[in-house]
Amino acid sequence: MKGYIGLDIGGTKILGVLYDKDGKEIKKEKKKTKADEGLDKVKDQIFKVIDKLIEEDVELLGIGAGSPGIIKDEGTVVFSPNIPFRDFNLKEIIEEKYDTKFVLGNDVNVAMFGEWKESGKKEAKNIIGIFVGTGVGGAIIIDGNLYTGRGGAGEIGHMVVNPEGAFCGCHGKGCLEAYSSKTGIQKEIKEQIAKGRKTDLKEYMEEDGAVIKSSSLEKAYDDEDELCVEVMERACYYLGIATGSLINIFNPDLIIFGGGIMESMGNKLLPLIEKEARRHTMPGLLDSVDFELSKLSDDAGVIGAYHLIKSKDND
Amino acid sequence: MKGYIGLDIGGTKILGVLYDKDGKEIKKEKKKTKADEGLDKVKDQIFKVIDKLIEEDVELLGIGAGSPGIIKDEGTVVFSPNIPFRDFNLKEIIEEKYDTKFVLGNDVNVAMFGEWKESGKKEAKNIIGIFVGTGVGGAIIIDGNLYTGRGGAGEIGHMVVNPEGAFCGCHGKGCLEAYSSKTGIQKEIKEQIAKGRKTDLKEYMEEDGAVIKSSSLEKAYDDEDELCVEVMERACYYLGIATGSLINIFNPDLIIFGGGIMESMGNKLLPLIEKEARRHTMPGLLDSVDFELSKLSDDAGVIGAYHLIKSKDND
Repeated sequence: MKGYIGLDIGGTKILGVLYDKDGKEIKKEKKKTKADEGLDKVKDQIFKVIDKLIEEDVELLGIGAGSPGIIKDEGTVVFSPNIPFRDFNLKEIIEEKYDTKFVLGNDVNVAMFGEWKESGKKEAKNIIGIFVGTGVGGAIIIDGNLYTGRGGAGEIGHMVVNPEGAFCGCHGKGCLEAYSSKTGIQKEIKEQIAKGRKTDLKEYMEEDGAVIKSSSLEKAYDDEDELCVEVMERACYYLGIATGSLINIFNPDLIIFGGGIMESMGNKLLPLIEKEARRHTMPGLLDSVDFELSKLSDDAGVIGAYHLIKSKDND
Repeated sequence: MKGYIGLDIGGTKILGVLYDKDGKEIKKEKKKTKADEGLDKVKDQIFKVIDKLIEEDVELLGIGAGSPGIIKDEGTVVFSPNIPFRDFNLKEIIEEKYDTKFVLGNDVNVAMFGEWKESGKKEAKNIIGIFVGTGVGGAIIIDGNLYTGRGGAGEIGHMVVNPEGAFCGCHGKGCLEAYSSKTGIQKEIKEQIAKGRKTDLKEYMEEDGAVIKSSSLEKAYDDEDELCVEVMERACYYLGIATGSLINIFNPDLIIFGGGIMESMGNKLLPLIEKEARRHTMPGLLDSVDFELSKLSDDAGVIGAYHLIKSKDND
């Protein structure tokens, strides 16, 4: 059997799947990343996942992978926020050890590439992915290929949507991420609770721990908790503004919304985002763009990695 | 001699230049567009320019052209604001009549393509052009090729830089163009004059007629006219914000600023734009981008058209 491996190298776990040539899942393997034990340990964990997968009788056609951080030349992690990769050429190491083709992308980029490939919108060539999670990430697909600039492109969470607005973790002000990420949403909720506002979210936040769960936000939103509705509407307002700007810039065929918040309550939020985007889109450009919600959930990374290496193999 | 023709089809005049293979200007021809006399007349005027140029002893390798408006498939003008082109397939007509290859792009895109090619920055592959004129236009070059989406991409003048800000001609609110175009600048000046503010610009505007000249703005700015400095600083503030967002989105190699205002006073404005962009750019992304002012002035269109057809000829 000929097959590909898709890897999703995350801050806490490494997920690997062996696929046959046509993308059928053959075998799945998961290991802890052990990022706190250093680079060599992380490398070992990656090897262990691959070794386990190739125990199958497979002729390996290539390995694709996604990792958080800035990726250069589809193989080197310049910097990763939560894994000790620094100018780390993973491509060289994997290609030498396993004598196969390897391609690496940023995790959000790779996941969105997978979402597009599995969306059934093959005629779409220019696609923007908007990922609403702990932060707000993005992916840009131009003419069917991931666009990464010098490795750091797609930081749409740091588009300025309110020039003198809230400070953002990036050092800037008024970034989309400051309003529409889970971090930004939670910060606003905390500030309002500190001011004495009543909300069910207080309870949920005590249960959830450090970061509020998307499912908790959904519950409170469905119960029409006033603060939750207000904060989520604000998040959608700014997402809509950024979406409008992105349509004016890219005149794209498709926009895919993913990430934890969109996965759990995207069907409720997308109409609000679209409505606001419409206010800011040039006449004519809105008609030719489709909006979709991501569908692959936790498997988007490995499926995207499979599609990425497969697309390279046909080069 | 083998040669190319570059055409710049404007709302008031059509400029054509015959170039030899290496881009040396051989002959130049200019005719009025006569847009108010209808489509057939405009076509005739285009033919007259080409006919005059091919009176030279030349083996024509192709014709490139730029036109205002939304361009599809590098040959059809879907819509043009000031020429009566509506879903007009200019490519078919020219290729049949002159038995040569023809390629058409949006005028700002084509001019910026020329600016890049003549900038001496050949190693730059991903380039954003920001055109500050009557409106604010843009051009996106990805991996050395013009990116146009479905024909309408690059409308960076309609990025939202202030969500509930000034109304814009596009029907949106808070677009970059509403603040940083000559139209936006003039509108603000007029409103301030109507409120009784003293300014040298009042005189200049009476002299200039309908649209204030860039040279008048420059004179008042150099004389430290308070209103002029204020309005130009506001224009640069918003240009800087949009530039920061664009760097975060594209991680580009080069940003070129062109258009009437940048040509006349760009050396004074660019530092203000850069300073503001710096506030909003992700750490690391600013180091790898160069800022340039356009250099070709009125010839950018024809030179860009030459480079565009030449780049296609090598396909």
